[in-house]
Amino acid sequence: MAPGIRNLIRFMLEIGDVVVVAPDKPQSGMGHAVTIEKPLRLDSLHVDGNHKEYSCSGTPVDCVKLAVNKVLHRKPDLLVSGINHGSNSSINVIYSGTMSAAIEGAMEGIPSIGFSLLNYRMDADFLPSKKFVQAIARNVLQNGLPSGTCLNVNIPAVPEDQIKGIRVSRQAKANWQEEFDHRKDPHGKAYYWLAGHFQLHENGNETDEWALSNNYVSVVPVQFDFTAHHAIPILKDWTYDL
Amino acid sequence: MAPGIRNLIRFMLEIGDVVVVAPDKPQSGMGHAVTIEKPLRLDSLHVDGNHKEYSCSGTPVDCVKLAVNKVLHRKPDLLVSGINHGSNSSINVIYSGTMSAAIEGAMEGIPSIGFSLLNYRMDADFLPSKKFVQAIARNVLQNGLPSGTCLNVNIPAVPEDQIKGIRVSRQAKANWQEEFDHRKDPHGKAYYWLAGHFQLHENGNETDEWALSNNYVSVVPVQFDFTAHHAIPILKDWTYDL
Repeated sequence: MAPGIRNLIRFMLEIGDVVVVAPDKPQSGMGHAVTIEKPLRLDSLHVDGNHKEYSCSGTPVDCVKLAVNKVLHRKPDLLVSGINHGSNSSINVIYSGTMSAAIEGAMEGIPSIGFSLLNYRMDADFLPSKKFVQAIARNVLQNGLPSGTCLNVNIPAVPEDQIKGIRVSRQAKANWQEEFDHRKDPHGKAYYWLAGHFQLHENGNETDEWALSNNYVSVVPVQFDFTAHHAIPILKDWTYDL
Repeated sequence: MAPGIRNLIRFMLEIGDVVVVAPDKPQSGMGHAVTIEKPLRLDSLHVDGNHKEYSCSGTPVDCVKLAVNKVLHRKPDLLVSGINHGSNSSINVIYSGTMSAAIEGAMEGIPSIGFSLLNYRMDADFLPSKKFVQAIARNVLQNGLPSGTCLNVNIPAVPEDQIKGIRVSRQAKANWQEEFDHRKDPHGKAYYWLAGHFQLHENGNETDEWALSNNYVSVVPVQFDFTAHHAIPILKDWTYDL
């Protein structure tokens, strides 16, 4: 398992019993994918008193579904996902496997949090994250979350004494400017590799990007009602030539 | 390509030029997955004056990114996705490959629509969908869509004369109650197959589920700002024990 998961397990074992169901391979960019056309494997890796670990052949969302239905046989008090190696702020939430697990948890009525550290390296230092991860987890356990929401927590990759605190934010407007690498394989056939750069479209201090670039831990409440409610009256005014 | 895509191509060729970039295999439950750790293939299948077709080895979201960046080299006037064989109403929008392509289009600033027919069979009759698909596409071309939104269109699987019209709706509250099939493979090792049933949690006549069960075509505006704005003031009141 990735160091981010290992560290999250360590942090959570100081708060309560931990049951891990984690994907058996990297799940970058997996979004809210589920496995429908293939069966899933679930392997027990480790069991002791307050700490169990399973590995699952599916996606992050599959892991949540299997954990609740086939491992715990009940809803846990808290679902945590991550700690992802790399940001899931702004629109990255939409592509994120880490956040899809938290969103799936919220859909099942479980208080759920996705954690990400803004350092994609495997040797990233997760220790400065510890007190923020634990404090946010304890608050969610105590207070619950508003119905239909989960938390997207992103942590700046700076030494602990430089983190200014926790800042509740909204998802910043941004997009990815794609730049596919166009290459030829050894047989002369073309292939494309997804690359690109992140383009931020606003600088408001209410956004997660502002919080992170000012060394705050950003906390964005995320919902799974995707309806653009403000657009409904506009669309109701349309007439159709049927 | 699936009959749903074939029919959508036919309907759209009566409106304008069509460039198809479609996945080369089924993408059920693919969510907003993107392919990061593997290269992508793009094969030209068909070219004539106003109609080009490409097959892509990636996800629906990959197809949108490749179509804009490597096929069209510009944003199209309209992006349509589907017609999916089966419903993408209510929370199915979150798991849907069809809708992830439309959401990706909206993220790139393209007027985008995902279409689904409430019949998952390969021999489903798509003809009753035709006039609704075309009317909605024409309206989007004429009027555009509110910024940051796309449309989730679901069509009841009934004869055309039973469809009562088009109804702008919101995403109904619901969840999937999982029931994993637990089986043994020929070597005696366990595997799990995702199954389950859809549970609707409300009956309001403003929802897509109501519209569909009353034989209306449902149109839900979908946004990619996932922020639960109403939850921000609640979370701002929290204090942390750091």
